[in-house]
Amino acid sequence: MQELKEKIRREGVAIGTEIVKVDQFLNHQLDVAFLDRVGQAFKLRFQDEAIDKILTVEASGIAVACLTAPHFGYVPVVFAKKAAPNTMIEGVYEAEARSFTKGTVSKFRVSERFLKKGDRILVIDDFMAHGEASMALCEIVEQAGAKVAGIGAVIEKGFQGGSRKLRERGYRVESLAVIEKIEDGKIVFEE
Amino acid sequence: MQELKEKIRREGVAIGTEIVKVDQFLNHQLDVAFLDRVGQAFKLRFQDEAIDKILTVEASGIAVACLTAPHFGYVPVVFAKKAAPNTMIEGVYEAEARSFTKGTVSKFRVSERFLKKGDRILVIDDFMAHGEASMALCEIVEQAGAKVAGIGAVIEKGFQGGSRKLRERGYRVESLAVIEKIEDGKIVFEE
Repeated sequence: MQELKEKIRREGVAIGTEIVKVDQFLNHQLDVAFLDRVGQAFKLRFQDEAIDKILTVEASGIAVACLTAPHFGYVPVVFAKKAAPNTMIEGVYEAEARSFTKGTVSKFRVSERFLKKGDRILVIDDFMAHGEASMALCEIVEQAGAKVAGIGAVIEKGFQGGSRKLRERGYRVESLAVIEKIEDGKIVFEE
Repeated sequence: MQELKEKIRREGVAIGTEIVKVDQFLNHQLDVAFLDRVGQAFKLRFQDEAIDKILTVEASGIAVACLTAPHFGYVPVVFAKKAAPNTMIEGVYEAEARSFTKGTVSKFRVSERFLKKGDRILVIDDFMAHGEASMALCEIVEQAGAKVAGIGAVIEKGFQGGSRKLRERGYRVESLAVIEKIEDGKIVFEE
């Protein structure tokens, strides 16, 4: 998505060789008109898939998912809740996701009421690094006996291997902008 | 908002005399088409206000804010991040909010870059109880020298006094559905 790459170049902030901050439009302040076009771009990529529901994880993923849903006929959005591990709650699917950036592990939880056997689920990830968040969401989908129709990532840091790992497990991943490397403060995209 | 009251009656779950669960459409699963009409209802209530930006807090508030923004000409949404108190970060506005339901205190944080002096801010609250979350957001708006144009709550538990407290401080509060009481598992709305 050309507009996204330009926006990242213009508004993103590269920190070192691994971090890109996009809190101007994706992670803290939200450019809603732009996110609507992101949703449209996901529809284009997944137009051959019948989607019953969108699954994401709080917090920033909610914005992207909510502006993607209208392009898929206003399917419901479900967001996994993050919590520290080891609080047992009944009636939920759960999976752990490690954040390499933050050095933490979260437990993602989704109520069993909101994922049904046979549902075709589009997983939405706002910023894919090692793919841990999407992997945990896919685990939850499968616990429910539902099907991962695909994974849509707004931005992917290609060099951290998330989408490769997910594709090896058989998932279809569509990233709207893939960062190849960050070099001397410059963000270089894969073609 | 009549449709909202009916939806709460139909899909909400009353627990005891103080809690109403609306995770079917507002707090966990999100009914995006419905939230679009919630955004439209906020526009009707605040049509006399010029709004520059919408401020809310993660997580559920993001969904409501993102579907409200299009009705206000796609103004940017900013969401406050919640964190445990006492991690110092520079360049942020912060205010504390107590959750009576959870018995916890969160520190809400917004980067100074995203609120400017003179900005007219619409504060969005998905579920107002004692009004602590909205109060903290208003404090942050005022730290920035911006102006609270109004507070829009989707659901308010009127008996917990949040909007009264906020109005006493001079804020305009518009709640789309006000719960007067919960009695024998029945949800009673104010007229």
